[in-house]
Amino acid sequence: MPADQMREITLAKTPEGKLDVADFAPRTVPVPTPGDGEVLIRVLYISIDAANRAWMQGRTYREQVLPGTRMAGGAIGEVVASNDPAFAVGDIVEADTGWCEYAALPGKLLEKRTPRGPLTHLLSILGITGKTAYFGLLHIGKPKAGETVVVSAAAGAVGSVVGQLAKAAGARVVGIAGSADKCAWLVNDLGFDAAINYRDENVMKAVKREAPDGVDVFFDNVGGDVFEGVLFRMNTHGRIVCCGAVSQYDTDTPSHGPRGVPGLIVTKRLKVEGFIVMDFFDQSPQAEAELAGMVAQGKIKVAEDITEGIESAPAALVGLLNGDNVGKRMVHVADRTN
Amino acid sequence: MPADQMREITLAKTPEGKLDVADFAPRTVPVPTPGDGEVLIRVLYISIDAANRAWMQGRTYREQVLPGTRMAGGAIGEVVASNDPAFAVGDIVEADTGWCEYAALPGKLLEKRTPRGPLTHLLSILGITGKTAYFGLLHIGKPKAGETVVVSAAAGAVGSVVGQLAKAAGARVVGIAGSADKCAWLVNDLGFDAAINYRDENVMKAVKREAPDGVDVFFDNVGGDVFEGVLFRMNTHGRIVCCGAVSQYDTDTPSHGPRGVPGLIVTKRLKVEGFIVMDFFDQSPQAEAELAGMVAQGKIKVAEDITEGIESAPAALVGLLNGDNVGKRMVHVADRTN
Repeated sequence: MPADQMREITLAKTPEGKLDVADFAPRTVPVPTPGDGEVLIRVLYISIDAANRAWMQGRTYREQVLPGTRMAGGAIGEVVASNDPAFAVGDIVEADTGWCEYAALPGKLLEKRTPRGPLTHLLSILGITGKTAYFGLLHIGKPKAGETVVVSAAAGAVGSVVGQLAKAAGARVVGIAGSADKCAWLVNDLGFDAAINYRDENVMKAVKREAPDGVDVFFDNVGGDVFEGVLFRMNTHGRIVCCGAVSQYDTDTPSHGPRGVPGLIVTKRLKVEGFIVMDFFDQSPQAEAELAGMVAQGKIKVAEDITEGIESAPAALVGLLNGDNVGKRMVHVADRTN
Repeated sequence: MPADQMREITLAKTPEGKLDVADFAPRTVPVPTPGDGEVLIRVLYISIDAANRAWMQGRTYREQVLPGTRMAGGAIGEVVASNDPAFAVGDIVEADTGWCEYAALPGKLLEKRTPRGPLTHLLSILGITGKTAYFGLLHIGKPKAGETVVVSAAAGAVGSVVGQLAKAAGARVVGIAGSADKCAWLVNDLGFDAAINYRDENVMKAVKREAPDGVDVFFDNVGGDVFEGVLFRMNTHGRIVCCGAVSQYDTDTPSHGPRGVPGLIVTKRLKVEGFIVMDFFDQSPQAEAELAGMVAQGKIKVAEDITEGIESAPAALVGLLNGDNVGKRMVHVADRTN
């Protein structure tokens, strides 16, 4: 049985400008008691994602996270008590528990997960980020062998998988990242053909050099100047997969959009498409099986970046938005007991 | 037989900023003699299009029109002499003759056209602009009955057809145009449900009022602030058909892009797609037959805006870029003789 009290992290105020750890406040609250049809979950790992920042600023594909309430976030947990016959103590589940140690949620908001390999893979390669890379690249970008794929935030949780999937599809892969170390890691460890440090040089010029035949598929997590720089190097009938706009999240005054929109979209006949992974949830089982297979065969290396303890969550998110992470960032809250 | 001499209009210099009639120079040159495999065409009507302006500034889907050379442009003409057995004197053809009275072109660059109704329809409803509306709206925008379609430059050659096709498909149709007269014409004569004068009010607010259920399909000819204003009102899974960016053509320093790109494309999961009508040329015969049928049934009113004489072409284009035209603008050069 859990203790009576637990820790949770609330959003103290709606951030102005760049997110700061002082925008959050931890507090001690009673461990909830599950009601009818509810399940009590012990949180094991919390996923830290750039999209978390967007949730604080207004309505996105979900309601805004309001000041004074628990910070939202996806997590993997184990069932410690259940009033829903579909869930048993010891089950591993995924849910939006928010940043806390225990959560009581209706069974219908939980997804039962089957671990394949390390538990953390359920949040990285077999989680939202791995599946985001999979569906966005393969169902929207559709790279063909011999084409050139550029991915931004390439050392991040999604980007690092996108690049490896594109290599497996036979494409030339160019990553854009924010440090020389990350660029070296992309090329030397993950097998990217080239990497561009956007803090060091002009993206448009660097893409011209590293993608001399132009860009057929651009998988973008960043927006802003990086989007604009690659847009100008797209080939006719190229595809831009809009997965995120992390350059615009950590502010309350988004900048103007990229030049060339919509002019270059017309003249190059581009397809620019946004998506969220939930649009593809019916195909999740195949995606998970395929990704797990590629991991087992060594075709995908899984990169994880784990911080320790629920209290580390605010700094983990602030750091993610600064580009500190390599691979999938998550917070380790507790170990599995069953 | 034609006279020995003819008039043509050259681009005098690459325009800086807004296009001016002084950027063009007429001159008298010999009527060309058709060589082996060439056809001599007497130009009847020249199409005036916003895209003409983009051709002067750099490479688009065609080579740049350089200073000192004849201004490019599509036209309908009649064959007056032929060294290609596929074409006979009196045939009506379509070709990029440029702005001139006679042109000698290889037969393979000509398209034989069959008049259905007035000859001018070959450049308007049955020409590039009518087919651009048809393919862009029906093959990319794909409006469903009950959805809301917004079209910019709605009183123009493409926009006026898009709106009528969208009405025929059962959509609510809101046009955006640049004068109260145009707006009244769209609603009273063409049957649009509402029209917005973008010079008079904030586009985003006006779209909120006239499209209270949000926008499912946005057919954009304009770019810039109009694009941004509608983008913010798009519904989840909306489609933006990028047909042109006339707000950005008449300048040598395109402005920044719309805010919300790519952020809103992600959160609303939009599909933003550019095209040019040539991408659909294999389906041209069906499109023409269907459009001609809708005209015959009174489902589409054809709006044409014709200026007189080859020398009127520069002012016709400058005026088009200022939004002077209602419907398809063209220049009447000569009458059919055969």
